[in-house]
Amino acid sequence: MRPFNIESTAGLLAQQLQTKIDGKTKPLGALGQLEGLAQQIGLIQRTESPQLTAPQMLVFAGDHGAAKAGVSAYPQDVTWQMVENFLAGGAAINVFTRTHGLPLAVVDCGVAHEFGAREGLINAKIGNGTQNYLETPAMSTAQCAQAVENGVALVARYVKAGSNVIGLGEMGIGNTASATLITHCITGQPLDACTGRGTGLDDAGLSRKQQLLGVAVARTGKLDDPWRVLQEFGGFEIATMVGVILAAAEKRMVVLIDGFVVGAAALMACALYPAVRDFCVYCHQSVEPGHRYQLAAMRAEPLLDLGMRLGEGTGVALAWPLVKAAVAFLNDMASFASAGVSEKS
Amino acid sequence: MRPFNIESTAGLLAQQLQTKIDGKTKPLGALGQLEGLAQQIGLIQRTESPQLTAPQMLVFAGDHGAAKAGVSAYPQDVTWQMVENFLAGGAAINVFTRTHGLPLAVVDCGVAHEFGAREGLINAKIGNGTQNYLETPAMSTAQCAQAVENGVALVARYVKAGSNVIGLGEMGIGNTASATLITHCITGQPLDACTGRGTGLDDAGLSRKQQLLGVAVARTGKLDDPWRVLQEFGGFEIATMVGVILAAAEKRMVVLIDGFVVGAAALMACALYPAVRDFCVYCHQSVEPGHRYQLAAMRAEPLLDLGMRLGEGTGVALAWPLVKAAVAFLNDMASFASAGVSEKS
Repeated sequence: MRPFNIESTAGLLAQQLQTKIDGKTKPLGALGQLEGLAQQIGLIQRTESPQLTAPQMLVFAGDHGAAKAGVSAYPQDVTWQMVENFLAGGAAINVFTRTHGLPLAVVDCGVAHEFGAREGLINAKIGNGTQNYLETPAMSTAQCAQAVENGVALVARYVKAGSNVIGLGEMGIGNTASATLITHCITGQPLDACTGRGTGLDDAGLSRKQQLLGVAVARTGKLDDPWRVLQEFGGFEIATMVGVILAAAEKRMVVLIDGFVVGAAALMACALYPAVRDFCVYCHQSVEPGHRYQLAAMRAEPLLDLGMRLGEGTGVALAWPLVKAAVAFLNDMASFASAGVSEKS
Repeated sequence: MRPFNIESTAGLLAQQLQTKIDGKTKPLGALGQLEGLAQQIGLIQRTESPQLTAPQMLVFAGDHGAAKAGVSAYPQDVTWQMVENFLAGGAAINVFTRTHGLPLAVVDCGVAHEFGAREGLINAKIGNGTQNYLETPAMSTAQCAQAVENGVALVARYVKAGSNVIGLGEMGIGNTASATLITHCITGQPLDACTGRGTGLDDAGLSRKQQLLGVAVARTGKLDDPWRVLQEFGGFEIATMVGVILAAAEKRMVVLIDGFVVGAAALMACALYPAVRDFCVYCHQSVEPGHRYQLAAMRAEPLLDLGMRLGEGTGVALAWPLVKAAVAFLNDMASFASAGVSEKS
């Protein structure tokens, strides 16, 4: 895999940004997490006056060979059916991105379905779904590398179009299971504790999922190389997102991370290049139990905690207005001096 | 005080709304709190297809006689200076309402300053600040009733203009202390536990505030009538907001509640008419410690928890996109049937 040049955003500018934030007409720290977010975006863009330009939401879709073994409550066909729903504008992510003014495109990273050329769909297909990781690696080394490169190419395309902020969402029946395996391997937390109900398994379904994922982990034994974890258990959409996150961090973009499945891609990217964390905005806390282990490993504090577990990038679309608000207060709010307001006595 | 006719929104429509929500192309319950919010707004408007029309954000400002005794970290002049900041468009609430498309007006309920006629400022002044409740009731019975009536008149004005959603924010040096006393009196929680640092008191300042508020409570003894609590300890802006909340609930508006100080007005309104709760959307969790007691008493689950403690209605302005998103998914998202997506197996 090619190396990425990802530098931490830490530097002297942090103090200047803090001084600017503290001079705004509000008690010190009174805007809570929005203050840290404003500072983060300033540091990413290396300026006290950051601007968010040409934001782009991408939903990465792919199928999982293990889905047919019963790791999800829904049949595999739902992946392509939901892609059709995205293209028709009827899914939650369509509604939320429309409501909040975020352009949306769907990326076919490996759905087991032929869509043909379609408005709003980007073809980055690696294959018709991954292999079943219960029996064999989900993808070959070459497929994994190609998916990552596809992600890199996507970022180049949006950077060229003037975008400096990118949001990630996903769709893929079975990809919560894939994200669970990645979370277990990267964080070292117990597999059962990382395993949740995904789209809605009942108790028996959850037990079966835990048992099946145990089989997958037993097949490979302990894996030390994050790239190997991705190849063994990843989906094509997750591998593509790893490429997107790494390339976006390299290009100093603001990277909006959704919940558990996008979080697994972010966790992987951070395991490879810890400075990736500086570029990620963690948009929401998922109900999926493994998500808290991801967030702890990345020392991440999500913006929203609404009890959601839908994926698609819905957490990103809902948090987007908060990201805009953080940048707006940094740029547009008056200071005590400019507004003639008395400071704390 | 005149009676208000406020009916619970509970009814058979709840089940129809739930059926509509459950038919959307997402796992059951996957949109978390947004699902309850969509149902609440449908029930308020008595329809499966609610619409938010002519939303209005109002910031209620007033001064507090007790402020000079040292219950706040800021000098009293900051109240009128911040009103000037609002009118000039430089405060956090200006930035956030502009960013999120929410019209804003400021209501002078009793600031100790003469503004004259000003664009964006509504004159509903009761007096130049309340009396010092350490020594005497904050307002007379007549003043309290007039403030409530001013709130009722404001609601009538916005209903006439076609508004069915109203957001409340506030500004008033010392009003966190006033809200603390109200919270203590209405919830019965210990005064010290309800008392926080407001705009940023240090440990010594917090101790002094607790001691001063203890003096106020000792002066009156235990109060059983919520109206009496409002008159003894309220600010003019808080009393006006109580009138707004009661009248808005009577008119079946969606009422967007900010943090601790607006929360005290909501708590008061709910103590008077428990069905008020059905009309309130609790926008954010404040850092102020007494806020959790308010929320528990109203069985409220706020939308945002960003570690904020600014007031002004900033929590409302930041949560407004979530409210729009909840209504949008209820109206615009495809169903499994309409999108041809397979349901859970």
